[in-house]
Amino acid sequence: MFERGDDARPGSTTSARLLVVDDTGARPRFDSLASEEPLEIRLRAGNHTRTVAITMRTPGADFELAAGFLYGEGVVASPQDVRKISYCVDVPAEQQYNTVNVDLARRDLPELDALERHFTVTSACGVCGKASLEALRLRGLAPIESSASAERQTILSLPSRLRGAQGVFAQTGGLHAAALFDLSGNLLTVREDVGRHNAMDKLVGWALLNGKLPLDERIVLVSGRSSYELVQKTLTARIPIMCSVSAPSSLAVDLAREFGVTLVGFLRDARFNVYAHEGRIRLG
Amino acid sequence: MFERGDDARPGSTTSARLLVVDDTGARPRFDSLASEEPLEIRLRAGNHTRTVAITMRTPGADFELAAGFLYGEGVVASPQDVRKISYCVDVPAEQQYNTVNVDLARRDLPELDALERHFTVTSACGVCGKASLEALRLRGLAPIESSASAERQTILSLPSRLRGAQGVFAQTGGLHAAALFDLSGNLLTVREDVGRHNAMDKLVGWALLNGKLPLDERIVLVSGRSSYELVQKTLTARIPIMCSVSAPSSLAVDLAREFGVTLVGFLRDARFNVYAHEGRIRLG
Repeated sequence: MFERGDDARPGSTTSARLLVVDDTGARPRFDSLASEEPLEIRLRAGNHTRTVAITMRTPGADFELAAGFLYGEGVVASPQDVRKISYCVDVPAEQQYNTVNVDLARRDLPELDALERHFTVTSACGVCGKASLEALRLRGLAPIESSASAERQTILSLPSRLRGAQGVFAQTGGLHAAALFDLSGNLLTVREDVGRHNAMDKLVGWALLNGKLPLDERIVLVSGRSSYELVQKTLTARIPIMCSVSAPSSLAVDLAREFGVTLVGFLRDARFNVYAHEGRIRLG
Repeated sequence: MFERGDDARPGSTTSARLLVVDDTGARPRFDSLASEEPLEIRLRAGNHTRTVAITMRTPGADFELAAGFLYGEGVVASPQDVRKISYCVDVPAEQQYNTVNVDLARRDLPELDALERHFTVTSACGVCGKASLEALRLRGLAPIESSASAERQTILSLPSRLRGAQGVFAQTGGLHAAALFDLSGNLLTVREDVGRHNAMDKLVGWALLNGKLPLDERIVLVSGRSSYELVQKTLTARIPIMCSVSAPSSLAVDLAREFGVTLVGFLRDARFNVYAHEGRIRLG
């Protein structure tokens, strides 16, 4: 179903010459950079084609990124909704791996207004955090009521388990990571990207394309902060426990509390904070 | 020209109850979170009105955010292009500070396609990093040829100068920062946000509204990674030296090299890397 392309695709890292400067002097060196390239995601259904997103991303797992993005936007709900995902070949070679066509099983393009307007805009003008939460309710998302739980020690162990799976390069901060664990803390998958939303989309896309959704017995760990959008993606994939190594925003906490997501922040240095639904962390 | 509103606006931090967990147990605590709320930016000209962006941001400096965003998109080029910036009052009180109207001096709305399509899409389909760079050239952006330079020791001192100006809260990682310095390392302005692009837009918007553009004798320091978009905003504001405390992406380096921006990364622990145009760093 999913054409994987050949080896001509761009890599996830690029080598660059740089100058290392400190108090003692300056030395030239070559080092790896995280690749950043635009990806155009095009939807096709019947005879219709439409570009739905152009996003800056790290090449690699592009089909998962497209699938996860479309899942998060409510365009596809199961692997059966997707007929094929492929790179666009009708372009110069250097652009070949920066455009992905997603062929839908349906014959017409879905209503796409939601892709252009993520928030409810009320009356004459105006939008607020409450309206954003309301928009999710309108999309029919129910709170997560999973009875899944995890040991405190399991949560504490997640960052070192993630580090063990990442390359030295990724650990230097060049890439964001999103990692999926089972409730015992076993690492299932890691996806990386210069954009943290993309890393999460790739992870969810992996689950979608492999028939593993919903992820209701899983824990996700993200490398950066928890934003409203990341909690929304977690909620949409029905993951009951979301951890990050840094701070959540106020709206991320509001969303997690209202929709039943256990939200852990500042998970590092053998401690963490729980901002919502602490009942899923077994402290005993 | 710019109506500042009253004190009912939402704050940049929110207090939340949380549970601190470590090896020894769990303790409830109250702590500050970075506020995250959507902001709708509306353009008005003559009798025309149009929403051009809805972005998640930390409340505060909203007029600067709107102005900086529109400057980066090429919609406004000088303070004279803006007649007034104000909060929308025709909404429920709780939403009043989440919608900003920007009244332009011109009578018609500018061509806004550029706001919806940031990249050049060639032929049948396809987009690539080279196309992104080309799109900037098409916008008439010339490389920065400033002869501005800064001492190595000045660059090394910037992170501690920034920390001195930030609250303890911001230093914990809850907010991204963008800080503007003169070539001697004196801190001129700091702006913070949950989104690093927003922090940069606020900084540039501050400069625009105060008649300080172009920033051709300045250094900017950002708290996160250097992405293509952040270098693009730096370039548009004509800042010759951009520093970040973390890694740049490959396309950020490409853009900096091609358009004359000195790009410093991993500026921390008394060292830094220079990825482009090292001639502006005086090593002596």
